[in-house]
Amino acid sequence: MNINGVAIDATFAEAFPMKATRALITAQNEKWALIAAQTMTGFATSVIACGCEAGIERVLAPSETPDGRSGVSIMIFAMGGKGLAKQLETRAGQCVLTSPTSALFSGIDGGTRIPLGKNLRYFGDGFQVAKLIDGKRYWRIPVMDGEFLTEATTGQVDAIGGGNFLVLAQSQPQALAACEAAIEAMRKIPNVIMPFPGGIVRSGSKVGSKYKALNASTNDAFCPTLKGMTKTELSADIESVMEIVIDGLAKEDIDKAMRAGIQAVCDLGADNGVTRISAGNYGGKLGPFHFHLQEIMA
Amino acid sequence: MNINGVAIDATFAEAFPMKATRALITAQNEKWALIAAQTMTGFATSVIACGCEAGIERVLAPSETPDGRSGVSIMIFAMGGKGLAKQLETRAGQCVLTSPTSALFSGIDGGTRIPLGKNLRYFGDGFQVAKLIDGKRYWRIPVMDGEFLTEATTGQVDAIGGGNFLVLAQSQPQALAACEAAIEAMRKIPNVIMPFPGGIVRSGSKVGSKYKALNASTNDAFCPTLKGMTKTELSADIESVMEIVIDGLAKEDIDKAMRAGIQAVCDLGADNGVTRISAGNYGGKLGPFHFHLQEIMA
Amino acid sequence: MNINGVAIDATFAEAFPMKATRALITAQNEKWALIAAQTMTGFATSVIACGCEAGIERVLAPSETPDGRSGVSIMIFAMGGKGLAKQLETRAGQCVLTSPTSALFSGIDGGTRIPLGKNLRYFGDGFQVAKLIDGKRYWRIPVMDGEFLTEATTGQVDAIGGGNFLVLAQSQPQALAACEAAIEAMRKIPNVIMPFPGGIVRSGSKVGSKYKALNASTNDAFCPTLKGMTKTELSADIESVMEIVIDGLAKEDIDKAMRAGIQAVCDLGADNGVTRISAGNYGGKLGPFHFHLQEIMA
Amino acid sequence: MNINGVAIDATFAEAFPMKATRALITAQNEKWALIAAQTMTGFATSVIACGCEAGIERVLAPSETPDGRSGVSIMIFAMGGKGLAKQLETRAGQCVLTSPTSALFSGIDGGTRIPLGKNLRYFGDGFQVAKLIDGKRYWRIPVMDGEFLTEATTGQVDAIGGGNFLVLAQSQPQALAACEAAIEAMRKIPNVIMPFPGGIVRSGSKVGSKYKALNASTNDAFCPTLKGMTKTELSADIESVMEIVIDGLAKEDIDKAMRAGIQAVCDLGADNGVTRISAGNYGGKLGPFHFHLQEIMA
Repeated sequence: MNINGVAIDATFAEAFPMKATRALITAQNEKWALIAAQTMTGFATSVIACGCEAGIERVLAPSETPDGRSGVSIMIFAMGGKGLAKQLETRAGQCVLTSPTSALFSGIDGGTRIPLGKNLRYFGDGFQVAKLIDGKRYWRIPVMDGEFLTEATTGQVDAIGGGNFLVLAQSQPQALAACEAAIEAMRKIPNVIMPFPGGIVRSGSKVGSKYKALNASTNDAFCPTLKGMTKTELSADIESVMEIVIDGLAKEDIDKAMRAGIQAVCDLGADNGVTRISAGNYGGKLGPFHFHLQEIMA
Repeated sequence: MNINGVAIDATFAEAFPMKATRALITAQNEKWALIAAQTMTGFATSVIACGCEAGIERVLAPSETPDGRSGVSIMIFAMGGKGLAKQLETRAGQCVLTSPTSALFSGIDGGTRIPLGKNLRYFGDGFQVAKLIDGKRYWRIPVMDGEFLTEATTGQVDAIGGGNFLVLAQSQPQALAACEAAIEAMRKIPNVIMPFPGGIVRSGSKVGSKYKALNASTNDAFCPTLKGMTKTELSADIESVMEIVIDGLAKEDIDKAMRAGIQAVCDLGADNGVTRISAGNYGGKLGPFHFHLQEIMA
Repeated sequence: MNINGVAIDATFAEAFPMKATRALITAQNEKWALIAAQTMTGFATSVIACGCEAGIERVLAPSETPDGRSGVSIMIFAMGGKGLAKQLETRAGQCVLTSPTSALFSGIDGGTRIPLGKNLRYFGDGFQVAKLIDGKRYWRIPVMDGEFLTEATTGQVDAIGGGNFLVLAQSQPQALAACEAAIEAMRKIPNVIMPFPGGIVRSGSKVGSKYKALNASTNDAFCPTLKGMTKTELSADIESVMEIVIDGLAKEDIDKAMRAGIQAVCDLGADNGVTRISAGNYGGKLGPFHFHLQEIMA
Repeated sequence: MNINGVAIDATFAEAFPMKATRALITAQNEKWALIAAQTMTGFATSVIACGCEAGIERVLAPSETPDGRSGVSIMIFAMGGKGLAKQLETRAGQCVLTSPTSALFSGIDGGTRIPLGKNLRYFGDGFQVAKLIDGKRYWRIPVMDGEFLTEATTGQVDAIGGGNFLVLAQSQPQALAACEAAIEAMRKIPNVIMPFPGGIVRSGSKVGSKYKALNASTNDAFCPTLKGMTKTELSADIESVMEIVIDGLAKEDIDKAMRAGIQAVCDLGADNGVTRISAGNYGGKLGPFHFHLQEIMA
């Protein structure tokens, strides 16, 4: 398959089950809602070393938020519900409770209810007050700038982590330009995040390493500087490869995000130095969810 | 003491010893250096729950960076050297090694040398190459977008955490406007970071809680909504209080940052609803460094 | 009428007929589409001295643009069709034709067709090529970075200028915070722009002046520093007033934008120092469109 | 001459005398100083159709501004003093006087004094008040949000317009990435602006046209799509060319900016698809200032 000069590999991304949650952060204005959201979802690129994968889903209009203020929707993904709940609570306590003018609301109705402000309320030292509106429980916690309003719980649901595709280009600026276009398109799709810095990972890894203590190491088959030294997957003209990793609530969400991202890359096309799209998998052994590139782009 | 209608309390901020390090992140352009830096220093507001306190110190011109590209200087603070080294390495591995086009350099000459890229190099799976330039050791680690260049070590030095001041205002927007002005002025001062979201914390805490499991709780004496319910420190006209916390390399650095920040607040002054500056301390029992507000502003 | 402690004056904004057009700017990424759009709509706050009033309407997803790239929708308003056409062409030629990777498309189907790229094409010095797709005419103009693709015409329609409301607050930071919240909410409403810097004007004017050469001068009745010196409209507690001016395609669009903006101000409310909303009119003599605040908020 | 694989042409940029001025805009915070500055310097890419060339020089720390607030320094260039004065006054009146919380100060001591706030003061309708501090005259003009403080005059000096260089690359994303790096480096140099959108112009022009009414047209010799149709200056591998135009106060300033920009491009180098740097001139007939690329980079 070839779109605008870009070869689409006959391969698939392999993804695995995760647990996910969503929270809505509001503030006096969009600037401060974004600051709280960026702080809360920082250092959350890869679940193994960061404890979770997190990102901003989208900016919310005042008409879309529970308190009619500007807001941001964030999502957090982890391998299990326990780890997810702990990350949500710690990050909310350190980065939203502390952030000027913020409030914090559930972003998923239903699902398994996990604590959002339920335990943070004890910070109020007994001065906190419960509030029940339309069957939902909120806490008003006195803080120095006024009050921190937070919903007691949010929903935890089944989700999928590790959707991905690789962008192969003739130089680093071309790979980056193509991935920037992809990320802009993918951020318009709901129910997904791209957890790496700016949405992009430039250091893809393979399972295993020559160092026994390590479980993963550089994906040498896709490293342009190693073409002469390893069994490469790269043709002579490829000098830079970047990857976009996607976590999403459902297979359809990741399908849509991959399609939008790959399409944006192909719109730039071979004229702009992008010649191939591939994906990362483990031969189908690890993850039950397979995202076949050619089916997605059909 | 009174500056432009703002009362400066006869009190002091109390700070304690920490360990600190600095690293320089460069990238193809400032946008991507900033993305790596923000990701690496996210979720790092308070050392107890985040493992460290971290922030962006400043943006670097190409002429100031080791590789002549745009860059950003970040600082990390922790209670001890061991925790600091671990946070530096994990955050660099997850958030800079992975970030498109990045390189990573030492930001402190001398000090105790701690690993920057020294152990990250093993990600190269044996393909990494050492480089010695002017007595400094670097690693070139093959990655998909080309190569990750990183200095082997950076410096760890003694530092100070917990400098602070409180801004008391007649409403939330006024407290926020004053703190925003303070943060802009303080970001021009070298050797300091303000680790909370956007530099500001609105949920100051006191030591202890009525709940035995908790070591800290809301600073009820400074909560405007609790004026009638607790022994308050607030006069009738104060409706919002925000705090700025500063970590710095030396007492003089924090002095300078506090002076710049408090001056910016006072320049807005009572006409803009800011009527008092105070600070947080523990009676001088906890920290050996005391920052007397009136001395700083003398 | 009183909403959350904010008095809504029993008055109306008075607006007048204008002509408007819309264009879509796309680029390699959102950053560059925004740069072209900001440059094109700069220095366009007031039609009398700038020749037009212009602004960014919204950011477009790749799926919403004719060429599948990131884009921005801009709108321009002028008193007549001739002036509008001239401003559109000059600004497009200076600020979009010149901007890296850009393309330019019609943003209004139908209406009176006015030149978008129709005359800019001559910049191609005979090398330009026409293209007809689905009945629409485009020009491909060779430029140094590749090709400038532009639709030949866009639509000009009847529109309304001068919708407005005034935010009266107890201090400048409170007025600004309230107007920032209003602008964020209003930017989510289609078919309108707020042409002043950041959407806000702080120097409202009255018709006439004591200097005969001038047609307008400071609205002294709403200047807080002149309370003792002129016939003021301000009560003792008001220390800052800001205005938001809205241009829109139809009365309903301006209604919606005013409602969203005033609601955002009232959500902050008297607790945040905003105590009154008013509007500017000329006794109904100048403009046929009247926006009654209390009707809009009913 | 060849730097990191980039050929530096043995040619020169040709520049001509202009008049320039500088003004300092301050505001409640950096965000609003930038908004006023961007609005004021918008639609000012080329002096012929815009009336002036203008841009932001740099962001100012509170310690660098006359009123101790955050600020931005802007510069305006025009062909003569009369046009310059008119543009300064109109743009200041429409875009700074109107912008929330702003103040406006002289940015050049000495020079020919031209009106900054001298005539804007009449907007105050007789309520304005003069203020003389350290021999400098200021006006305090009552406006709705409080007061607009503006210095009466600023300095006009001799200057140079039209410094430039061309970046030739193998694709559009590579040309753009190289120019973005150049612009970031050049923005650190004082006394210069790069007036085109984001600092870059992609539609370089030649003098003359086959259409008699036009004085300029596309620089076909540097258009990649015209290689087979015109007398091209481009080798087979060049697919995109972008130009950076620089206006500066003195020849040395433009020298420094060109050196910083070209060095940043060469640091990316041939590996990133940039293979040549050239410059635009008219055979030395038009402008007395010649910027020889190889001398600048020697």
